[in-house]
Amino acid sequence: MAARYAPQAPELQVSQWFNASEPIALGDLRGKVVMLYAFQMLCPACVKVATPQAQEADRRFAGEDLAVIGLHTVFEHHAAQQPSVLAAYIHENRLRFPIGVDEPGGDKSSIPKTMRRYALEGTPSTVLIDRAGRIRLRELGAMPDLALGVALGRLLAEPTPDGDG
Amino acid sequence: MAARYAPQAPELQVSQWFNASEPIALGDLRGKVVMLYAFQMLCPACVKVATPQAQEADRRFAGEDLAVIGLHTVFEHHAAQQPSVLAAYIHENRLRFPIGVDEPGGDKSSIPKTMRRYALEGTPSTVLIDRAGRIRLRELGAMPDLALGVALGRLLAEPTPDGDG
Amino acid sequence: MAARYAPQAPELQVSQWFNASEPIALGDLRGKVVMLYAFQMLCPACVKVATPQAQEADRRFAGEDLAVIGLHTVFEHHAAQQPSVLAAYIHENRLRFPIGVDEPGGDKSSIPKTMRRYALEGTPSTVLIDRAGRIRLRELGAMPDLALGVALGRLLAEPTPDGDG
Amino acid sequence: MAARYAPQAPELQVSQWFNASEPIALGDLRGKVVMLYAFQMLCPACVKVATPQAQEADRRFAGEDLAVIGLHTVFEHHAAQQPSVLAAYIHENRLRFPIGVDEPGGDKSSIPKTMRRYALEGTPSTVLIDRAGRIRLRELGAMPDLALGVALGRLLAEPTPDGDG
Repeated sequence: MAARYAPQAPELQVSQWFNASEPIALGDLRGKVVMLYAFQMLCPACVKVATPQAQEADRRFAGEDLAVIGLHTVFEHHAAQQPSVLAAYIHENRLRFPIGVDEPGGDKSSIPKTMRRYALEGTPSTVLIDRAGRIRLRELGAMPDLALGVALGRLLAEPTPDGDG
Repeated sequence: MAARYAPQAPELQVSQWFNASEPIALGDLRGKVVMLYAFQMLCPACVKVATPQAQEADRRFAGEDLAVIGLHTVFEHHAAQQPSVLAAYIHENRLRFPIGVDEPGGDKSSIPKTMRRYALEGTPSTVLIDRAGRIRLRELGAMPDLALGVALGRLLAEPTPDGDG
Repeated sequence: MAARYAPQAPELQVSQWFNASEPIALGDLRGKVVMLYAFQMLCPACVKVATPQAQEADRRFAGEDLAVIGLHTVFEHHAAQQPSVLAAYIHENRLRFPIGVDEPGGDKSSIPKTMRRYALEGTPSTVLIDRAGRIRLRELGAMPDLALGVALGRLLAEPTPDGDG
Repeated sequence: MAARYAPQAPELQVSQWFNASEPIALGDLRGKVVMLYAFQMLCPACVKVATPQAQEADRRFAGEDLAVIGLHTVFEHHAAQQPSVLAAYIHENRLRFPIGVDEPGGDKSSIPKTMRRYALEGTPSTVLIDRAGRIRLRELGAMPDLALGVALGRLLAEPTPDGDG
């Protein structure tokens, strides 16, 4: 059997937050399972499948044990997916979970910073981070609800680490 | 039984066309049935239900007898639904039918001009225009496919008017 | 262009009716459009897609102008799809339209009589019969709602024949 | 906080098995999580939602750690839902997981024996049994995939008990 290593999740680099009274750091969520949902507001599979799924996960399970965090990782159509447009999208779709705008990659890259740090390959992408802050799943494309649920349930069943993880 | 009157469809007022090599006038479509689909790119029921329906109607039935025409009737979130953003939306969703940007209503109104002329109450809205250029159906909200199909089929079965309608 | 001929619809051969106070003959429906829906209660595409579609067509459009008629054409699992089992299926799914049991084909054939007369190739099948009693569409497999609607609408728009069709 | 007690799952009473080379006893599955899916072949919510869900759970997750077991709990339309009819249903829907026919309740009751032992209130019902053989979830009605997944994932994450449970 292969040896398996779960890397520590890099901190988010976010230029602006929606649905959050103050900036969110992964470090502050230690002890919770984090579902990090990377999307673009103009990506059809995000709009039709993965965003409603993140919304359902938030509505059913977020709280003491689970945090659902959206990340707007714009790597195409930059001009059309500005934060002001995202704000209208969040409003119209009644999204309630915190959503951060991934910090633009600078002149050299169209890939925003957190997206690059996590080596995400596109949108939608789902990243599951365990209570100790380690990446346990990173998947491109809309996941079937049943498969996402099983992955979440497995992590939620793990005990909270005693110390600092 | 009530007397019924089908008013002539007012001409479109469009500031910009997508998927059309030149501006489209309803007058040029006389002899065809026209499905005019009014939407906003950030309206969830448009994105999830009515836009795919218009796309299917176009793919299956547009041609000699039917023209499917989109109309982007922005009456809220004006800044977020600019034509440049719509262009990206059209690209990402691979929409192939002609889509016109309804001409803004001017300082006095957030309701664009064609939308007001047709007295549309919101988005999505479907307007069916017969071969003689008369409005035969105007409905707010996503229509069930079966109901839209029956309405289209009834109009498609009508003979082309001999003269100018 | 090919010459096209719409054959007269053969009469139904039904051994037992459900949801009908007396036997139904196509001849009695002249002047209406008839949607004849052939199915088997154990056929998955019937149960999940085509039966709900027939139910919706009946609920929305049946009346003066349209008659939706179910036909239980058992050509496999004969023992498991007896009329007594069909009765329970109709009850559980709250089907309201008339459903006839296609008369068994006799010793020589597992294909029931009406199914053979109409040369149906399997279930689900949809047959559309115009106001003059002619077959205008015969399709194997679940039809998309939009396509069925357009086909129905076209036939509904045709005038009632003056004489006996 | 309320004290919570997970009762030991009673043994199944099954008169006939499908998709199983020999009778299945819960005792033999100790160490695995068991998803016990109670249904009737003529129950619409079973056919359309819960049976496909059990099929997906079996296809994705059954194996070393999870066993999906169907239980045909006929408490109405007894004559129409005989094992011979169920056999055709299983064949047509290509169900692969083991399915037991719940033993009829005898003259005094229309409720079959296992259904009564588990105090199930209807169909579809889902019962989750942990690796130690205790009932951890018992739910009437089709569960959302995400909720079922989380419940399954939590139980799958529990360690196998050392002894006999």
